Amino acid sequence: MNKGQHLCNFFNPRSIAIIGASRDTHKLGHGIVRNLHDYHYRGDIYPVNPRAREVLGYRCYAEIAAVPQPVDLAIVVVPARHVVSAVAQCGEAGVPAAVVVSGGFGETGPEGQARERELQEIAARYDLRLLGPNCIGTIDTHTPVNTTFVVGMPPTGDIAFVSQSGAVVAAVIDWALGSGVGFSRMVSLGNSADVNETELLAEMAADPQTRVITGYLEGVADGRAFLQVATEAAREKPVVMLKVGRGEGGARAVASHTGALAGSAEAYDAAFRKAGVLRASSLEELFDWARALAWQPLPRGNRVAVLTNAGGPGILAVDALEGAGLTLAPLTDATLDYLASRCPPHASVRNPVDILAGSGPATYARALDALLADETVDAAVVIQAPQDWFYPTSLAEVIGEVAAGRAGPAKPVLACIMGLASTADALAILHRRRIPNYAFPGRVASTLAAMLARRRWLEASPEPPIEPFPADRETAQAIVQAAVQTRAAILGGSETSRLLEAYGLSTPAHDRATTAAEAVAVAEELGYPVALKVTSTEITHKSDVGGVEIGLSNASAVRAGYERIMAAVRRHRPAAEVDGVMVQQMAATGLEVIVGWKRDSQFGPLLLVGSGGTEVELTRDIAVGIAPLTRGEAEQMLDSTLVSRRLAGWRGAPPADRSAVIDTLLRLSQLALDLPQVAELEINPLRVLAAGQGALAVDGRGIIQSRDL
Amino acid sequence: MNKGQHLCNFFNPRSIAIIGASRDTHKLGHGIVRNLHDYHYRGDIYPVNPRAREVLGYRCYAEIAAVPQPVDLAIVVVPARHVVSAVAQCGEAGVPAAVVVSGGFGETGPEGQARERELQEIAARYDLRLLGPNCIGTIDTHTPVNTTFVVGMPPTGDIAFVSQSGAVVAAVIDWALGSGVGFSRMVSLGNSADVNETELLAEMAADPQTRVITGYLEGVADGRAFLQVATEAAREKPVVMLKVGRGEGGARAVASHTGALAGSAEAYDAAFRKAGVLRASSLEELFDWARALAWQPLPRGNRVAVLTNAGGPGILAVDALEGAGLTLAPLTDATLDYLASRCPPHASVRNPVDILAGSGPATYARALDALLADETVDAAVVIQAPQDWFYPTSLAEVIGEVAAGRAGPAKPVLACIMGLASTADALAILHRRRIPNYAFPGRVASTLAAMLARRRWLEASPEPPIEPFPADRETAQAIVQAAVQTRAAILGGSETSRLLEAYGLSTPAHDRATTAAEAVAVAEELGYPVALKVTSTEITHKSDVGGVEIGLSNASAVRAGYERIMAAVRRHRPAAEVDGVMVQQMAATGLEVIVGWKRDSQFGPLLLVGSGGTEVELTRDIAVGIAPLTRGEAEQMLDSTLVSRRLAGWRGAPPADRSAVIDTLLRLSQLALDLPQVAELEINPLRVLAAGQGALAVDGRGIIQSRDL
Repeated sequence: MNKGQHLCNFFNPRSIAIIGASRDTHKLGHGIVRNLHDYHYRGDIYPVNPRAREVLGYRCYAEIAAVPQPVDLAIVVVPARHVVSAVAQCGEAGVPAAVVVSGGFGETGPEGQARERELQEIAARYDLRLLGPNCIGTIDTHTPVNTTFVVGMPPTGDIAFVSQSGAVVAAVIDWALGSGVGFSRMVSLGNSADVNETELLAEMAADPQTRVITGYLEGVADGRAFLQVATEAAREKPVVMLKVGRGEGGARAVASHTGALAGSAEAYDAAFRKAGVLRASSLEELFDWARALAWQPLPRGNRVAVLTNAGGPGILAVDALEGAGLTLAPLTDATLDYLASRCPPHASVRNPVDILAGSGPATYARALDALLADETVDAAVVIQAPQDWFYPTSLAEVIGEVAAGRAGPAKPVLACIMGLASTADALAILHRRRIPNYAFPGRVASTLAAMLARRRWLEASPEPPIEPFPADRETAQAIVQAAVQTRAAILGGSETSRLLEAYGLSTPAHDRATTAAEAVAVAEELGYPVALKVTSTEITHKSDVGGVEIGLSNASAVRAGYERIMAAVRRHRPAAEVDGVMVQQMAATGLEVIVGWKRDSQFGPLLLVGSGGTEVELTRDIAVGIAPLTRGEAEQMLDSTLVSRRLAGWRGAPPADRSAVIDTLLRLSQLALDLPQVAELEINPLRVLAAGQGALAVDGRGIIQSRDL
Repeated sequence: MNKGQHLCNFFNPRSIAIIGASRDTHKLGHGIVRNLHDYHYRGDIYPVNPRAREVLGYRCYAEIAAVPQPVDLAIVVVPARHVVSAVAQCGEAGVPAAVVVSGGFGETGPEGQARERELQEIAARYDLRLLGPNCIGTIDTHTPVNTTFVVGMPPTGDIAFVSQSGAVVAAVIDWALGSGVGFSRMVSLGNSADVNETELLAEMAADPQTRVITGYLEGVADGRAFLQVATEAAREKPVVMLKVGRGEGGARAVASHTGALAGSAEAYDAAFRKAGVLRASSLEELFDWARALAWQPLPRGNRVAVLTNAGGPGILAVDALEGAGLTLAPLTDATLDYLASRCPPHASVRNPVDILAGSGPATYARALDALLADETVDAAVVIQAPQDWFYPTSLAEVIGEVAAGRAGPAKPVLACIMGLASTADALAILHRRRIPNYAFPGRVASTLAAMLARRRWLEASPEPPIEPFPADRETAQAIVQAAVQTRAAILGGSETSRLLEAYGLSTPAHDRATTAAEAVAVAEELGYPVALKVTSTEITHKSDVGGVEIGLSNASAVRAGYERIMAAVRRHRPAAEVDGVMVQQMAATGLEVIVGWKRDSQFGPLLLVGSGGTEVELTRDIAVGIAPLTRGEAEQMLDSTLVSRRLAGWRGAPPADRSAVIDTLLRLSQLALDLPQVAELEINPLRVLAAGQGALAVDGRGIIQSRDL
């Protein structure tokens, strides 16, 4: 079933029935009819209410079945207990889509949840697409149609807003009206009993009137589906999301560092990055970014020209730009000469270009034109501190004309006509010219940084998937199967090592021993020095319980080490079942890195890389990404950690084998996807040897996915 | 001379002369007379212009000497070349204060700088206080007086704004008019030839109409003076600053980690923290904080009640609050019961309290009253998503009444009547009621965090200075003097050790050796194992050139280590003069901490503490503070680093001697103030032993202050 085909009825219906339409101006069912009328809906409007003859001049019907013409969209705004039958009647009448405004469903407790399930069943039975319940509906400013009861219709524009909060939609409508920023569509999801955020994302991606998709998100229905749809949408047009709800962060008491460090907040970050979704940190930022992304081209690089009529505002811009990773364009000598010849004496022609308070729109025009023509400039910010020499409207016209009328590569222009009381007319002109304005210069910085992030994602994506590594899947499956059959929750060091070896990863030579004498025999075989590590499926942080002895250089040291481990483990964990020890050849010296993954409930295997050792939870020098990792994603993850700088050779140290870390990440990404019964797996430390010499998985542990857990 | 006594003339003059007053409406000299008139200045106005009879109906004088009455304030707005003589004439005429609006001074190059020095001399000669040049003047809304030419008078209020940019003042005036936020005074400093930011800070602190002092700062004239005045001002009333200009950060190639890590940006941070100055990161934040600090009491703790009529906006607030270190108040059972009995069914009475969309101002009133009466609540945030059941003005009245009319301890109330188009009337009521409003809920978070930071600074301050440590100052001076006399730029490890010992700090036993044989002899004396470290005043990062050998356990190892060092140093630094090696007893194992200081050009000794070792510049786990440190400041510095958590015993490790680190910081603070000829001094690593066992300064280096450097 191609369910998506019906979603257009929410935005461009030929006719709308309002079930629960009311003559009482205090009722929602009145507000909806009023909005359809006041905001110039051109299709047919059919109020349904058995106790009214007409509402706002529209003939009223006793039931949906009595409506004489086909209805594309029903809006249901009756008490909760009547909703299911109302929607069923819509289904019977062949209505393909319904907005359920009424609350009293999943959000209210078990009874409401049951009612919501009934609603889902009815919708599925009639193949009726349902938005809500507990939502405020949809707006399309181009159709135009406003199915909400909220007073106010946002100006026409090209930003779509998808929200899991109706109240936030109401606030954004009010903000849009106040700021004059236009929208193409708004939609409130409510409880998402049927239509969810991911389907709407796809619908907005397909809407020709929408240039930027924005959203207020509390969660997603299906992480993998969201990833796929968001990636496709982001290839079409910018997607900017405000994700709220910090979630549980890392769970509290968990079996691995990876589990502790990679919670749902980190998973969303990684998913957004992978999909090219820009993540805003506030509603202000969401729309600061959206209007620049909708109206202006992307910058090709990070070199910004700042044009100002006063020093202080220029410094504000420069501070913020540099803080966001942008840089001041150097400008060519030709530009500097030109500016020097056209600007007043004492003007500062070096970037930030300060043409001084006495300059008017003509000077701005010449300077902006020269800056945009300069090959070292990727973007321009034009600042005007309030003055009364000329009308800000004149500057607005000039900025719009110069930005639009240029030959050569497109470059974004952002304006800062500063202030609030005197700027309304100028803003109206800028908006018509599609130039975003920011009342204070600092706000341009995160906006340009977001535009640049999008540009770089587009350039890097789509990246071809990596070739599968040769792997001994049979052995790997057998190891996991054995653990599952013995109902072991944990894969010990020895099993994990074999698993890693099956995926082509190197581990130090090792063998097991169950007595001190056996340990000595194994050590003699491997060669000194050796390390001993307790093996127990019940102990995950071995060093915390005295279960690790390192640097044992002869037989007596191994014997003593064995006894110390057994004593320490008995003291710390008297109940734990101990299988003996793993005797391991000591790894050569090298940097300690952690590489691991856990299965996120939404997005699947979440990989992690960072500074290894016992302090990973303290230093938190980690980066996360979602499987399957591409090589570029793995490189980016590692690049964003401090340990990558250590690997490169910090303070004259020889460089370590960075490519072995990337290789390990990619192999774990494949392993995670191959072995669904493993819930988490972690190498810590991965000892990274000198460049070209690889890396050794010195210690590893895995967690088996268990339905019982 | 009590220069401060004259500053009142800038804000409350009985008469004003405008030198350069003009009939031409395009001239600044016209705008100033117009503003004095239009904004209801009640004192005498004397335009001075030899070529006009009157300006805007005020009789015009040919020169300042011709004005028949005493003039409290002259505003000079004539071409730069005439300014000095105009000010001199003011001095002759006994005018005590002048605003020089004209530009063309220090900002324009050597000629202008010379002119500015002349201006300073004239002002000093006549004991005339001078604001500017190159500034836009002053505003006092209570007097009222507006000496600027900028169109617009901010509403009357209690926020003072001191700015080193006139353009930013103009933008803030426009913002104030648009937002309806009132100001007591605004002042633009220009080039600060005479009156500077620090004096004005003191003046604002003394102004009874000002409750909060805000500022836009590019730098300070005298760091130590600023520190003192700002501290005194912050005891009186909140001081909030936007400090711009990132400065040079840490200098690039420097001799110590401390020098690299503690640049002028860090020094300003430390100075503001010490003085209790709140540092905003943008103009928006500056005034978000200022109006809450001006209008509402400080919270006693970090427990916030959120009252909302919709879920999404509540989540936005909670996300931001938790991100800023605040927490949701748990609420007492009595409050929960009360709310349950008074709120609609399905309302969420647990914090965040969601009274649902249908609730009106009466429900808000009851709920807010109950929340403010709850002993677990330190602050309340009241959110209203746009709706059309009731007028937002009604809610504004109710919030104001409940917030003001309570018995019991004062608690701050912040409003979020959301949106932009429909909220103007409600905001006017809130402002009259002194309730700050934030259009989007996220912005309350940094505001409450700033209020709480101020509360905690007030509680912790003033802290008594620490008792001076007994120190062998004579020896310390002798060591420094010897270095100065030999023109050595660097204090080597051995001298630094002796210096530290003179201040009561412990170092590992050590001695010097200039041959391998001597090194063995010293090692036998100290006991094995030992470390060898090259000694050379030309080598600062010894391990980078192979100049350190550790863990040498017998005579042959010491001999071999000595030869390796000499060979490595010859290879890396063939030209360096090498004095031999320091043979040092190996310190017991312990955590490595860095403790150091450098002399900041503005604020004096800037102390630093953090994770030590060779990677300090990579991990950047450091905190800075300004001497003299109090014990509380030293504790706070250490607390803000990760190494403090290691010291406390990370993952079951035994706790280390934290107090020895604090002690070291405090002793270095004293040493830095005692020995002005030392420019930098650093211990890295300070090896911190187990709790109660102290710490050893394993390696140290100092830089001698040199006029030649």
